[in-house]
Amino acid sequence: MHGTGVAARKIVRQRRPVSAMPQEMPSAKSRRINGERLWSRLMAMAKIGATAQGGCNRQALTNADWEGRALLSRWAQAAGCTVRVDSVGNLFVRRPGGEDTLPVVMTGSHLDTQPTGGKFDGVYGVLAGLEVIESLNDLGFTTSHPIEVAVWCNEEGCRFPQPIMGSAVWAGRTSLEAAYSLTDDAGKSVRQELERLGVSTGLPVLRKAVKAALEVHIEQGPVLEKLGKTIGIVTGVQHMSRHEVVVEGQETHAGPTPMDMRRDPIRLLAEVLPMFYAAAQKRAPDACLTVSVIETLPGSPNTVPGRLRFIVDLRHPMVAHYRSLRDEVDRLVEEALLRQGLNGSIRCVWEAKGVEFDADCIAAVRAATAALQYNAVDIVSGAGHDSVNVAAVAPTAMIFVPCAGGLSHNEAESALQSDLEAGVNVLLHAMLSLSSATADTSG
Amino acid sequence: MHGTGVAARKIVRQRRPVSAMPQEMPSAKSRRINGERLWSRLMAMAKIGATAQGGCNRQALTNADWEGRALLSRWAQAAGCTVRVDSVGNLFVRRPGGEDTLPVVMTGSHLDTQPTGGKFDGVYGVLAGLEVIESLNDLGFTTSHPIEVAVWCNEEGCRFPQPIMGSAVWAGRTSLEAAYSLTDDAGKSVRQELERLGVSTGLPVLRKAVKAALEVHIEQGPVLEKLGKTIGIVTGVQHMSRHEVVVEGQETHAGPTPMDMRRDPIRLLAEVLPMFYAAAQKRAPDACLTVSVIETLPGSPNTVPGRLRFIVDLRHPMVAHYRSLRDEVDRLVEEALLRQGLNGSIRCVWEAKGVEFDADCIAAVRAATAALQYNAVDIVSGAGHDSVNVAAVAPTAMIFVPCAGGLSHNEAESALQSDLEAGVNVLLHAMLSLSSATADTSG
Repeated sequence: MHGTGVAARKIVRQRRPVSAMPQEMPSAKSRRINGERLWSRLMAMAKIGATAQGGCNRQALTNADWEGRALLSRWAQAAGCTVRVDSVGNLFVRRPGGEDTLPVVMTGSHLDTQPTGGKFDGVYGVLAGLEVIESLNDLGFTTSHPIEVAVWCNEEGCRFPQPIMGSAVWAGRTSLEAAYSLTDDAGKSVRQELERLGVSTGLPVLRKAVKAALEVHIEQGPVLEKLGKTIGIVTGVQHMSRHEVVVEGQETHAGPTPMDMRRDPIRLLAEVLPMFYAAAQKRAPDACLTVSVIETLPGSPNTVPGRLRFIVDLRHPMVAHYRSLRDEVDRLVEEALLRQGLNGSIRCVWEAKGVEFDADCIAAVRAATAALQYNAVDIVSGAGHDSVNVAAVAPTAMIFVPCAGGLSHNEAESALQSDLEAGVNVLLHAMLSLSSATADTSG
Repeated sequence: MHGTGVAARKIVRQRRPVSAMPQEMPSAKSRRINGERLWSRLMAMAKIGATAQGGCNRQALTNADWEGRALLSRWAQAAGCTVRVDSVGNLFVRRPGGEDTLPVVMTGSHLDTQPTGGKFDGVYGVLAGLEVIESLNDLGFTTSHPIEVAVWCNEEGCRFPQPIMGSAVWAGRTSLEAAYSLTDDAGKSVRQELERLGVSTGLPVLRKAVKAALEVHIEQGPVLEKLGKTIGIVTGVQHMSRHEVVVEGQETHAGPTPMDMRRDPIRLLAEVLPMFYAAAQKRAPDACLTVSVIETLPGSPNTVPGRLRFIVDLRHPMVAHYRSLRDEVDRLVEEALLRQGLNGSIRCVWEAKGVEFDADCIAAVRAATAALQYNAVDIVSGAGHDSVNVAAVAPTAMIFVPCAGGLSHNEAESALQSDLEAGVNVLLHAMLSLSSATADTSG
């Protein structure tokens, strides 16, 4: 245990049964999570779906994903919590509150990873929630509000092409049927995979009242590291969308067809790629444009492709710039199709509107950071998170910690144990203030 | 049978046993192949590996490829021929000659297809050879030289990445071990697949003496159709090569990494693609440049790719222009890598030097075409063919017939029965002249 000597002094140790009685609050200095335990759990979880390069492949609704959730469930039950799974595969770990019918104070993230993902993206936020619960147990502390740690299903959206899927259904932003009907490249649907893994499907996804929700996450970008900050107080998430471009050419032998008699879809790519980068540059440094997937069909070395497909991901924190970037990319593709005389289209396949987080939740994070004397900076998230969905139905904020070189969605993703520990300490303090404020009022 | 009434008049009908005696030559007008039989066999072969869009998927060394060869073997044996397979999977149908120890007069092509190939590419040249043999049987004609129809293994090079593989080993241009060690995307080697399909591996590939070799093929380009010609007298094959470009970037999350802090390999593609097309345009209309395969890794929609790989195919009939195009493409990639600060490389993964076909073989084709009064034009092949390898060790030429719209390597590939028939009539006449000339001398 980390800092036990200090922590033990002022705490009324009290494991089970949970009591609704007002409790003596340990001082800010004494309440700390157990960084060693957090780290060892991160490393244990990383063994499931471990890749040769030190990363993880636990894509949504695979056996590895489920194995990770089973491990978490064992830890949670050993910590005296209950575990339930809703019919879109979201898992909730619950620690009862002193007044257990009050709205929950929520935290959590996801356990699924990219195909070549790292050890921390999402996992950290889930195990941070578990660590808060175990630290509360260690400190013998009972919150008035129940605490829940959510493991949102299919956050990554790489196997089934809709990111932050489970939280979207939970928040009522995506229908259960729409999520069920998503399929992977092998043609398996979310519904089939949920059923294969033993989830009861079909029941409505119930959402309990949530008082506040916090998510702690590695930054997945280089800003905190560059600025030398330990904590990012996340004030919102940038606007983002994903666009699929499909161009139909004519599949012909690469040799005997003169170039002026071809319908070569790669001509479109040659024309729009430089324009895409120029469009992003016009909106530098905040705009992000990524061409992440490019596929040619049939993909045979001596055949002019009959079909080109690629994905463009667009992000900007300011709605006006985001919209003008989207419009420009749409226009560039449409004009190039016309100039090249090729059939094709660009369509938005996913959009997550930006969000401003809840002022009270941000204030709780800011106060906790200040009390713990961490170096902090306000930041807008460049990545989408389940918190975007949660924020649509509950007061929400996020906490970021640095990751090495800003790398994420990469097997080399790494973070310092001390930074990860700091992030969960902020989470603990912010959750205590959010879950105890009502306790004071109702007590 | 096509034109039987005329053909039967002047022919000494003589099935088996084959005799070495000089024979009365039927006149040019009377000797014709059976176009209906040819067509029905093309259609029967197309059922093996048939695709929903009317094409064929009989990639090299698959069960479908072997099923096609088994069908051919049954037809060949019913026509009184022997069939043998060498240790790299080339199959030879042999019709004995009147003087069976003389060098063979050879024809043939391939039965493997692209993943979304058509009914005629390669198949036509093989079934044309069988049709010549059956027509000789029908006409009761014995050639002095033995006739062989080759089915070259892995011409397409799409599953195992070396086109015209089997003929290259046969011609001594590729070692048997190099061919054996080629692997497909699933990691299976040519050797493993040959053994799985029952081919005895390991023995040296023997090459019998070849007097002359002809290959009939659909043009796979639009030139004959555009000029309204039935027969292309192929005088050579253009120079061609295939180049693999690999660019190493850094895999990061598409959201939170500012664009100026990325190592995005797609930047290289944006820079070189327009320059590639400009380099080809400078050498128009003869240069062909095709970017056929583009792959991004990990290929996940919200991840900046860590790796880009693409294939450029370059062709030109004139060696000086071909070489300058190659040099320019190499230089463009290397300069762009430097400018972008990205690691990567371009390397030639396959090259087939252009070839000028044998003057006597071309003359035999030209004479046959004239005797049969077909509209013809001299043409340089834009595609590589097994004949490029055969030409390295034996006098060789090719005959082209039009295909609709010049389409090939496409499920919609199609050709007129009358054009296909004309091509085999030219093949029959040219082979008769090449295989009987010696008969006259030795008789």
